[in-house]
Amino acid sequence: MSATGHRREHDLLGDRDVPADAYWGIHTLRAGENFPITGTSISAYPHLISALAAVKEAAARANEDLGLLTTEKADAIAAACQEIRRGALHDQFIVDVIQGGAGTSTNMNANEVIANRALELIGHEKGDYAHLHPNEDVNLSQSTNDVYPTAVNVSTIIAVRELHTAMETLRQAFAAKAEEFRDVLKMGRTQLQDAVPMTLGQEFSAYAVMLEEDQSRLLEAATLVHEINLGATAIGTGLNAPKGYAEAARRHLEAITGLPLVTAANLVEATQDCGAFVHLSGVLKRIAVKLSKSCNDLRLLSSGPRAGLNEINLPPVQAGSSIMPGKVNPVIPEVVNQVAFEVIGNDVAITMAAEAGQLQLNAFEPIILHSLSESVTHLRAACLVLAERCVAGITANTERLRTSVENSIGLVTALNPYIGYSAATSIAKEALATGRGVAELVLEKGLLPADRLAEVLRPEEVAGQPSGLRP
Amino acid sequence: MSATGHRREHDLLGDRDVPADAYWGIHTLRAGENFPITGTSISAYPHLISALAAVKEAAARANEDLGLLTTEKADAIAAACQEIRRGALHDQFIVDVIQGGAGTSTNMNANEVIANRALELIGHEKGDYAHLHPNEDVNLSQSTNDVYPTAVNVSTIIAVRELHTAMETLRQAFAAKAEEFRDVLKMGRTQLQDAVPMTLGQEFSAYAVMLEEDQSRLLEAATLVHEINLGATAIGTGLNAPKGYAEAARRHLEAITGLPLVTAANLVEATQDCGAFVHLSGVLKRIAVKLSKSCNDLRLLSSGPRAGLNEINLPPVQAGSSIMPGKVNPVIPEVVNQVAFEVIGNDVAITMAAEAGQLQLNAFEPIILHSLSESVTHLRAACLVLAERCVAGITANTERLRTSVENSIGLVTALNPYIGYSAATSIAKEALATGRGVAELVLEKGLLPADRLAEVLRPEEVAGQPSGLRP
Amino acid sequence: MSATGHRREHDLLGDRDVPADAYWGIHTLRAGENFPITGTSISAYPHLISALAAVKEAAARANEDLGLLTTEKADAIAAACQEIRRGALHDQFIVDVIQGGAGTSTNMNANEVIANRALELIGHEKGDYAHLHPNEDVNLSQSTNDVYPTAVNVSTIIAVRELHTAMETLRQAFAAKAEEFRDVLKMGRTQLQDAVPMTLGQEFSAYAVMLEEDQSRLLEAATLVHEINLGATAIGTGLNAPKGYAEAARRHLEAITGLPLVTAANLVEATQDCGAFVHLSGVLKRIAVKLSKSCNDLRLLSSGPRAGLNEINLPPVQAGSSIMPGKVNPVIPEVVNQVAFEVIGNDVAITMAAEAGQLQLNAFEPIILHSLSESVTHLRAACLVLAERCVAGITANTERLRTSVENSIGLVTALNPYIGYSAATSIAKEALATGRGVAELVLEKGLLPADRLAEVLRPEEVAGQPSGLRP
Amino acid sequence: MSATGHRREHDLLGDRDVPADAYWGIHTLRAGENFPITGTSISAYPHLISALAAVKEAAARANEDLGLLTTEKADAIAAACQEIRRGALHDQFIVDVIQGGAGTSTNMNANEVIANRALELIGHEKGDYAHLHPNEDVNLSQSTNDVYPTAVNVSTIIAVRELHTAMETLRQAFAAKAEEFRDVLKMGRTQLQDAVPMTLGQEFSAYAVMLEEDQSRLLEAATLVHEINLGATAIGTGLNAPKGYAEAARRHLEAITGLPLVTAANLVEATQDCGAFVHLSGVLKRIAVKLSKSCNDLRLLSSGPRAGLNEINLPPVQAGSSIMPGKVNPVIPEVVNQVAFEVIGNDVAITMAAEAGQLQLNAFEPIILHSLSESVTHLRAACLVLAERCVAGITANTERLRTSVENSIGLVTALNPYIGYSAATSIAKEALATGRGVAELVLEKGLLPADRLAEVLRPEEVAGQPSGLRP
Repeated sequence: MSATGHRREHDLLGDRDVPADAYWGIHTLRAGENFPITGTSISAYPHLISALAAVKEAAARANEDLGLLTTEKADAIAAACQEIRRGALHDQFIVDVIQGGAGTSTNMNANEVIANRALELIGHEKGDYAHLHPNEDVNLSQSTNDVYPTAVNVSTIIAVRELHTAMETLRQAFAAKAEEFRDVLKMGRTQLQDAVPMTLGQEFSAYAVMLEEDQSRLLEAATLVHEINLGATAIGTGLNAPKGYAEAARRHLEAITGLPLVTAANLVEATQDCGAFVHLSGVLKRIAVKLSKSCNDLRLLSSGPRAGLNEINLPPVQAGSSIMPGKVNPVIPEVVNQVAFEVIGNDVAITMAAEAGQLQLNAFEPIILHSLSESVTHLRAACLVLAERCVAGITANTERLRTSVENSIGLVTALNPYIGYSAATSIAKEALATGRGVAELVLEKGLLPADRLAEVLRPEEVAGQPSGLRP
Repeated sequence: MSATGHRREHDLLGDRDVPADAYWGIHTLRAGENFPITGTSISAYPHLISALAAVKEAAARANEDLGLLTTEKADAIAAACQEIRRGALHDQFIVDVIQGGAGTSTNMNANEVIANRALELIGHEKGDYAHLHPNEDVNLSQSTNDVYPTAVNVSTIIAVRELHTAMETLRQAFAAKAEEFRDVLKMGRTQLQDAVPMTLGQEFSAYAVMLEEDQSRLLEAATLVHEINLGATAIGTGLNAPKGYAEAARRHLEAITGLPLVTAANLVEATQDCGAFVHLSGVLKRIAVKLSKSCNDLRLLSSGPRAGLNEINLPPVQAGSSIMPGKVNPVIPEVVNQVAFEVIGNDVAITMAAEAGQLQLNAFEPIILHSLSESVTHLRAACLVLAERCVAGITANTERLRTSVENSIGLVTALNPYIGYSAATSIAKEALATGRGVAELVLEKGLLPADRLAEVLRPEEVAGQPSGLRP
Repeated sequence: MSATGHRREHDLLGDRDVPADAYWGIHTLRAGENFPITGTSISAYPHLISALAAVKEAAARANEDLGLLTTEKADAIAAACQEIRRGALHDQFIVDVIQGGAGTSTNMNANEVIANRALELIGHEKGDYAHLHPNEDVNLSQSTNDVYPTAVNVSTIIAVRELHTAMETLRQAFAAKAEEFRDVLKMGRTQLQDAVPMTLGQEFSAYAVMLEEDQSRLLEAATLVHEINLGATAIGTGLNAPKGYAEAARRHLEAITGLPLVTAANLVEATQDCGAFVHLSGVLKRIAVKLSKSCNDLRLLSSGPRAGLNEINLPPVQAGSSIMPGKVNPVIPEVVNQVAFEVIGNDVAITMAAEAGQLQLNAFEPIILHSLSESVTHLRAACLVLAERCVAGITANTERLRTSVENSIGLVTALNPYIGYSAATSIAKEALATGRGVAELVLEKGLLPADRLAEVLRPEEVAGQPSGLRP
Repeated sequence: MSATGHRREHDLLGDRDVPADAYWGIHTLRAGENFPITGTSISAYPHLISALAAVKEAAARANEDLGLLTTEKADAIAAACQEIRRGALHDQFIVDVIQGGAGTSTNMNANEVIANRALELIGHEKGDYAHLHPNEDVNLSQSTNDVYPTAVNVSTIIAVRELHTAMETLRQAFAAKAEEFRDVLKMGRTQLQDAVPMTLGQEFSAYAVMLEEDQSRLLEAATLVHEINLGATAIGTGLNAPKGYAEAARRHLEAITGLPLVTAANLVEATQDCGAFVHLSGVLKRIAVKLSKSCNDLRLLSSGPRAGLNEINLPPVQAGSSIMPGKVNPVIPEVVNQVAFEVIGNDVAITMAAEAGQLQLNAFEPIILHSLSESVTHLRAACLVLAERCVAGITANTERLRTSVENSIGLVTALNPYIGYSAATSIAKEALATGRGVAELVLEKGLLPADRLAEVLRPEEVAGQPSGLRP
């Protein structure tokens, strides 16, 4: 370390001074200068930082097993990695979330931080790479092209699990309302036109079931991400990684993370392929589409209070207007809609980035990671806020709902089996034109006896049995 | 022509038999075999076929002017092109709408059809290319890479003008309703919650003004498409096109089409750039977004008849349900929504195709043309059907609309200047909780004298002056 | 039938004349007038027409089982449906592929065609609905909202199976080349920069494995489409469908189609949910992304012939240029790229349509079907044409490929384990600056003895073992 | 203020404690709790915060002019706003960038911060709203629905101007290279196949001209954003804004910002319409598409160093690989590609948000602002980094480029006018098959005399005149 608070480091392009107290080094310095894009550094992805540390620790242990790394070095690297996984040094991960180079700068940043912390742990100064080198020791038997995707996989698994839990919270909130509203009759609607009766419980049950299916698809997609390419090195041929390394590293990584990871059968393919991320993003988009649809419905059903449908009430969570007194808006569903739009947009960005991969590598994994990470974490936040600040507090305007069934023309559909589609159509037309009720007209025309009619039109009958939540 | 009903033609890859009565030749034959993708041939684009003929005629005349083509040949080519522009021989344009090769097969198809028809006109048999050759005469001084984009430009201008006319029809339909409903009071809504009063005329006026703005943007975007690269030949350097050709060809094309065309200042750039199409597609997407939003509103405002907003009535155009008697659905707005979704999807396809261009050419212009053509023509159909089968017949439920204003809580907003936001908020809360009216509560609390209150809450006053249709 | 060649039919909106020889009726007539959007009728989907006929036959048999339909009527309906499934009467399905109304017009078109053909079969005239009615008999116990999605599911399964077969053809073509090129050494590339050696066989193997994974995902997604909502009727409550109908209809449909169909556990959810289509489209997009990437690679590797990479040769399938003699272009990969862009755009259209569903139904299923159908069938065509007209005929420029490895700087990577990253970096820099070879420089500097160096740099060694196609 | 370091505030929903030192109040507190989505607060948009302050100052002055606000209050509000515009208090803008409620929380946050700072300036404690009230004074004559879009417009104009400047920097960098490389001959390529000669200057000139056109489109789109709806209040009817307010507020805002703003002719339309943002995003997408295409080209042209095209050299800015010594990657173009993908994805998010607007308002403006803001600022960063860290340092491999022209088959195209397309095709085929040169074969076959041939094939002649940079 120089008197000026800097240390000098060297790379392919020459020498540069690095702040003496920085754990990162010259590669990170240059990357910081090269990518002043978003102002947000990769420390914004704590799961990724931890996953990188886990991969580096696993690699060090595999190298130790194979006699490529001394136990002293492996221990030091492992200790540094564990600190990082406990949350330390994340502020040293300073390269921009949008960066060129297929994640090389992120990997280099990790190599440097881990090397310098490990150096300290074994009694050397930061930058004294003769004793432990970012590339030759921390990155030993590795390439960005296997380390980075593997870390992205690991961090994605964790984040997806958190999303799954949040979806379960939301699913339960909808299911609880489905149970609560099981006897609340209402008009069902198709194409926004009055259709036939149903229960509000059935309506909410549908939201719960949609989520349940999405949860299954999410877990399926997450399975794909358990396939890693660690040991592939640069292009999948495993150059520089000794025999046995891939399996040893995988085994250590599994032990460190507790995740059931498998090594891809074809590492050349696995190294260039972003299919699992495209697939996962497609599933996130599916979730977004359905969350957005559900929120559109909630906003519509709670429209009013006087000039809207006014069937349900969302719990008020803030004043709705700076000018209209007393106005309360459906701000929670609205924010969920917006997250959904973001996720759908991110899916397009991921699609383009994946399509742009060339030959043995996709250089655009950083934007894939960035977009995917946003989608997963924002969807998780949206599910939680929707469950807790909206769905849990929804109430029904039961009386209004029942009245709408009783006054409806849609009841006439129930008469099809008894009077036929053509006669029922005439009744419906007349009811609409005159404002009169369906039952009244049927009786007047003598189409059915009163007692039979009453039985057929019993709304509970017409609504059918709730299909029920799946067990 | 052989006895077997075929004639033999020759190209780079060897000999092939072509049906004797086909105006297309060996290049078209191979393209037909190579691209069995959609089953739809380019004859589905009559504007493009005509535009290709116009370009070929202009090129022939320019070549004649410059002494490269005899007047006999030029006349024959021109006569064939004119027949095509009058609608003849379109069935000879058989290559698939989705094709590889940057439009080469479409250009080759045109060269062959024109050459063979011209041969007939000057007394030779089809295929007797010694007398008039598809490449050496019809394509003289040209390349697919300038002819095809120029023809796409010309055909796009025509199609866009037709779209503009359809938008004007729709705009007038909305404007007529705005006038008709100018005195119909109703509650305005923000975030689907009752807001403050307005007139139904103001609501419809907004749709008319949106369209008017979109029409302006469409014309602006169309201006860009008037810039052509004819004379660029293969990559913009004009190789093989003699001095003076570009200007002569442009002048002839302008005369033939009646369109004010300009030659791009930098032909290398113009030959590789799809910016104008991306831009135009972006404007079509904008139009789609707003049409879709307007149709969403129409569906919402006409929801019911009893359990919906029921503010307006769309004219019934078909029975709505195979099971629910009397049900009528907003099928016209629904079809417009779907066209909008298609246009938005096409914009993504066009974006990807444009981004995929490499070096001196974009090889993916066929899908750009295909998507753009769909977007323009389907939007045109959607505007016409919406104007004629829906908007023109809309009626208002005036009584219901006025009642909703009088019962509304939103009226309280008008009291802000007199009693303040905080007091107004209390009134609103109480009105909502008790079901009572705003005016009643204000009087009871002595916040304003009765006559002043009546004046302030006069709905017509509250709704403000209609911003007015633009003259 | 009137003397004027028409018959008169009646519906909710009044009377209309229908051509006497038309099997379709008044509902179809109105729909034809209401949706003049694309000019393409639903007869363009033969799988859908057949699937509709299968559903109608299954419904008729279920109604017969439950005593709702006489055997005579059920037999007549079944006979008409079987004719349609054998390909008859498809020209009677005339409503536009883009239509409002959630598929109602398609269902009505089917009801009318089937009813009229069934009437003929039992000796009545077309239009004599007193004997067999489109709605009351053919549509008995049904709604568009269960019939249409079920038919879309069935037709999608068939189309997806065809796509899967085409993908297998393409996969085998890539795998055969992987085997053929297993010993062809070449430079691998990351970020378009020379990386480390590999074999051309490994490169092609990756394309085969990518497809294999996509095939698995496609089958998974297709599984979801086997879940049907037949019996749900209008909104999933099963109104008008008698007890036992859903299961009977499902069983008959399974027998007719030979497909293992299951009824959704929650019919209200199933009737409004488009999740399976969004999911399937997401998988199609994934396939498109990877096909496009593979085609980008093929175009890049075959660039030249003299100023490009010129590593492989695509079989020439047509002359490439109307102006540049001898030029041959990669038109087959180019057309596949374009199909991929279309599929990606369609995914956005499907996403928007799915998100726009409201309450108990998605009114926009027609555009979902349309886009999905295009994506599946065009992808299928693209796979076949790529396999047969391109991949199968690819040859390698083996000599050029080997030379590029021997001259490469990337070989130096193999020395990392022996001389370290830093020393290797110096060698690489010097080789690049001087144009000299890596081996030469290593020997000159005495970094490794000649025999050891030769062994380490043996290209076959450096390329690693091909990961192999999976068994 | 309570002894516990909090002050109590009140709203529609009840009382809450706010930290005593916070300038924000109860509405902001609730919004902070309601929208824990991204963890990024609106202080990340400094242009928006400043624009909000400008709008609030303009409104206060207009209210003062019209006698609705005392000069003391107006002065205090204006002073607080000016502090904010100088950069103070931005940390008090704490609501999340993705929020429900059409921007209400952002507006409320501004109202509260300004009110509390103004209170301090006139000697009162924060929270002492009896003396100056967030809603009744700071928000006087305003609604979120006119204030927020107006502020978004103003901030967008500023950000777009910065982008325009960055694009000009990049354009000049490309133009300088075009001039530098004006005499460097090379092979042009279409569809990645060797086409005909051109100069490297022409190639770079095309990039400059593309940008120039995009700059024009950007300015056109920015013009649309100068149209504001200030004075519209809740839905465009101007309720609660006194006569003369809209024009006075606009005039003050123009004076404060120095921007030529106009009030929309139809405020009802302007309040619900997001067309200008959709349009602007479409133009940003267009810019992204072309930047990405240019970067794809740069990466392709610099591929190698030995197994690639190796036509140009990008300046090395960092070591390219953690494993491959000496490897340098095109990381700057790569990061620009990724920004482009993000912008294209954002355009889809904006499209969906715009389409989702309902009736008199679009509730989803926050995600539109968020996506648009990201797109503009990231594109700006990308242009600067591309200009300064890549384009400015590009060098050409002149010798290699000239050789590729001399050896090319593409030269034969220049012979078309002399020997015809068919003969030229034979020469090309033979050259390709035998590896011989075009000139040699032409002479051997006696197709042209040697001196004439030499003249025709002079590469400078063949390349044509550079179309020239526009003045």
